[in-house]
Amino acid sequence: MIIDCHGHYTTAPAALQEFRDAQLARLKDPSLPLPAEPGISDDEIRATIEGNQLRIARERGHDLTIFSPRASSMAHHVPDPATAVTWARVCNDLVYRVTTLFPDNFAGVAQLPQVAGEPLTASVQELERAVTELGFVGCNLNPDPAGGFWSSPPLTDEYWFPLYEKMTELDVPAMIHVSTSCNPAAHTLGAHYLNADTTAFMQLVQGNLFERFPTLRFVIPHGGGAVPYHWGRFKGIATREKFPPIEENVLPNVFFDTCVYHQPGIDLLTSVIPAANILFASEMLGAVRGNNPAGDFPWDDTKRYIDAANLTAADRSKIYEANVRRAYPRLAARLAAQGR
Amino acid sequence: MIIDCHGHYTTAPAALQEFRDAQLARLKDPSLPLPAEPGISDDEIRATIEGNQLRIARERGHDLTIFSPRASSMAHHVPDPATAVTWARVCNDLVYRVTTLFPDNFAGVAQLPQVAGEPLTASVQELERAVTELGFVGCNLNPDPAGGFWSSPPLTDEYWFPLYEKMTELDVPAMIHVSTSCNPAAHTLGAHYLNADTTAFMQLVQGNLFERFPTLRFVIPHGGGAVPYHWGRFKGIATREKFPPIEENVLPNVFFDTCVYHQPGIDLLTSVIPAANILFASEMLGAVRGNNPAGDFPWDDTKRYIDAANLTAADRSKIYEANVRRAYPRLAARLAAQGR
Repeated sequence: MIIDCHGHYTTAPAALQEFRDAQLARLKDPSLPLPAEPGISDDEIRATIEGNQLRIARERGHDLTIFSPRASSMAHHVPDPATAVTWARVCNDLVYRVTTLFPDNFAGVAQLPQVAGEPLTASVQELERAVTELGFVGCNLNPDPAGGFWSSPPLTDEYWFPLYEKMTELDVPAMIHVSTSCNPAAHTLGAHYLNADTTAFMQLVQGNLFERFPTLRFVIPHGGGAVPYHWGRFKGIATREKFPPIEENVLPNVFFDTCVYHQPGIDLLTSVIPAANILFASEMLGAVRGNNPAGDFPWDDTKRYIDAANLTAADRSKIYEANVRRAYPRLAARLAAQGR
Repeated sequence: MIIDCHGHYTTAPAALQEFRDAQLARLKDPSLPLPAEPGISDDEIRATIEGNQLRIARERGHDLTIFSPRASSMAHHVPDPATAVTWARVCNDLVYRVTTLFPDNFAGVAQLPQVAGEPLTASVQELERAVTELGFVGCNLNPDPAGGFWSSPPLTDEYWFPLYEKMTELDVPAMIHVSTSCNPAAHTLGAHYLNADTTAFMQLVQGNLFERFPTLRFVIPHGGGAVPYHWGRFKGIATREKFPPIEENVLPNVFFDTCVYHQPGIDLLTSVIPAANILFASEMLGAVRGNNPAGDFPWDDTKRYIDAANLTAADRSKIYEANVRRAYPRLAARLAAQGR
């Protein structure tokens, strides 16, 4: 079985964005009415999924995708908590409908209604709702809700602990995933996303978060940002600055996904990071769509690179399936109940 | 000949930091007198160099180091232009003395007196002084003088053009190098440095800076941050977002150094990035000092990795020497005049 742990509903029907636009318009002009929630039919959802993510997953041989709302649209920088709560709920409900229309192919992961500088109370509530009422198996956690200005404390700070307590109670992991960059210095897909992965990992290296939350689990997407390429640097810094060994302090609770869009990158990832810490992912359809003209195949067809990597069958199976079940026990339980 | 393009005077005599401390104390208490410039003897400089960078360079077989003041101490976030001017001058003068005491082994690169939010007039002046009076061959340019808050415009913005005009006139390159992170979210060496490399590269991918400044040259340190590991991602984003091909729009003017501290990272760098765009560097003694316990050799002994990489002799020679001469023509001219 092949599980893609990183997909977003980037092809949602246009009514979703129209609703968002109306939300933002009302923030500018509070005299406007509260926008009606988007009316989207099951057929519309089926069409956007069957023609896109599901078609491509079938072509490539992915069995199941862990699916969440579009990351770049989370927009946690918008400074209105009530707007964020509604936006997350509407987005999560739409993903929930995808998971009910295609229960064999998609499992839900929640967008949280984070707002830069605000407490995480609403995020804890939405996580609980998404897991207990919608059957979601994880969440996306934005370490920089300011959108490229990095005004939040590190992930090791007690600011985040209420969410970690709920994640621990529910036994769900978080993918550390920023949203759009509002900073003209940092391109969203080509800088901000990768920087966030690197930054979050180093925050964990510096801290001792998993001593306090021993069962908390994070997925760092986009192949871990710059981390595997600079593994010697991170190990050397940890040694020189007398941080505990990364293998003991971080790796038992952290996974990297395989959203690295060329063979040499996947070869590096799989040769440097233990197979037990790698989760298969493509982020299809995400940052990089379209074919690599050099190979006439899609950049984001990461299964192609994993299949070609120098891995044992056992390690490849861990990456495709076993590790994902371990990271997402609620998904594992569901699959087991289905005999999958 | 082996030229290390990335060294900082991280072992400067203590009097330099004492001067800096006095500068900063006076910013807090303007009633204090202007601090006396540090009194450092030639013997002190010799001792700090001969026992450290020069000893190790000789052990490893590096012939020459392109040498600049300590990057993490540039501290361009300190909001006083006059202080920045004096600090850059004092640091550059000390590096100049290193280059006069060991003229065969070191060539100078300038710290600029940047101040976040201020114009670059003083930086242009210090660059001119360093090149024409001290014989320096390049400069370090900080794309985020705010120190982890990214408040400056992208490197493609006209804010930076006065410096580019002077660099073009003097025919010197800049290494894109941030200083210490003031942001608790971003560890200086394990996040901020690598993020800056990635961010700067993506700014160049988005823009068309080298159409306007066709002979401008940048060195992106630390192996290009996350860029080579994610080369497929960058190529795919450039294609999807209709930026010009990176090979035409960026690579003719940009080099990556080899400050990547393990063999798989160097193998990836040298297999993905054309040899013509790679400059040998170790940043010794820099972010990562000490021995890799797994191999009982220093993490930052990058020559070991380059020697072991799957490179032709011609490509290895480009990385060790020819590309550096091309990137730093003032150094090339000096070496040629010496028959080296």
